[in-house]
Amino acid sequence: MKIAILTFPGFNELDSFIALGILNRIKHMKYRGWSVQITSPSTHLTSMNNVAIERQQPLDFANQADVVLFGSGAQTLSIAQDQTILSALQLNPTQQLIGAQCSGTLLMAKLGLIGSLPACTDLTTKPWVEEAGVNVINAPFYAHENISTAGGCMSSQYLAAWVIAKLTNKEDAADAIHYVAPVGQKQEYVQRVMDVIDPFV
Amino acid sequence: MKIAILTFPGFNELDSFIALGILNRIKHMKYRGWSVQITSPSTHLTSMNNVAIERQQPLDFANQADVVLFGSGAQTLSIAQDQTILSALQLNPTQQLIGAQCSGTLLMAKLGLIGSLPACTDLTTKPWVEEAGVNVINAPFYAHENISTAGGCMSSQYLAAWVIAKLTNKEDAADAIHYVAPVGQKQEYVQRVMDVIDPFV
Repeated sequence: MKIAILTFPGFNELDSFIALGILNRIKHMKYRGWSVQITSPSTHLTSMNNVAIERQQPLDFANQADVVLFGSGAQTLSIAQDQTILSALQLNPTQQLIGAQCSGTLLMAKLGLIGSLPACTDLTTKPWVEEAGVNVINAPFYAHENISTAGGCMSSQYLAAWVIAKLTNKEDAADAIHYVAPVGQKQEYVQRVMDVIDPFV
Repeated sequence: MKIAILTFPGFNELDSFIALGILNRIKHMKYRGWSVQITSPSTHLTSMNNVAIERQQPLDFANQADVVLFGSGAQTLSIAQDQTILSALQLNPTQQLIGAQCSGTLLMAKLGLIGSLPACTDLTTKPWVEEAGVNVINAPFYAHENISTAGGCMSSQYLAAWVIAKLTNKEDAADAIHYVAPVGQKQEYVQRVMDVIDPFV
């Protein structure tokens, strides 16, 4: 299973790395063949807080991936106008799970992946997503078939859990969240995450 | 305000980057002078899931920092026996806030920073921390004066909120968590985080 976490210069660390951490957790626990990859047009990129990282895969990895998650960041508005990047992404929601975190929703909207579906994003990006014609709802997570969006950095947990539940089953999603959940609060934490994604899986 | 997030080869992305993201959030919102830095003995390091990053500061940045947070990772057991690293850390809990996330608690124990205090860590690291003579409790977060520990990756939220509340006030901590919290759940999310740290600030 190939999972591309699309990560652009100026990226929000929470939005890329929470999903990466949770999805790799289930890989370590159970599905050794899963490949969760920071995927970017830039070989080297710097986060919104100046953390320099190397990409793990080039952009076209996303086109062959089973799952594509759009991360968020401080430069999404300019990326949303970058035809070189947008046209390099040839995604197919009938065959791929596609999700976005916060401002990543704007990129999904520009690629025509949201259409008339309700969508989630962060409060800062909301006006831009609405301007792109999307109905933004006041919710942390929404999904329909293979398309999902999440709003607020910590909603990355919901996005990752949804991916696992869709790829395998709800029990695996709960196991991955259980592993990363706070000690002494694991059951209630897992239950809250599962309550959010339950209507969509 | 200088904040060192100690990050070693094999690091857990969640444990370093959730704290970094939340602490930088309050910097962007309010305290421009705060400097939150991935601090490591290695100029270049790779996470437990093979994400290659560059450190932002060398190890001795921690010795001059106002706050030192020990991240967690897959190689903590060997780091806990590395006298070059341990002896390079000259920390002072009367003048610095010092906290640990998951296996970082083992490093704090080895440095004599926990003493007889109860401490939190993840379930995997628990036996090693107990072997180091520490009383590990079944809780997500514990703090006493300037020392704190957290267990379970997502408890990084509590560690970051405690740092902010200790450095400034609870309202700032709540504001930072509010920003990263899931859309549509922000108030309840903030309340849960504040309930955890409230006894300790």
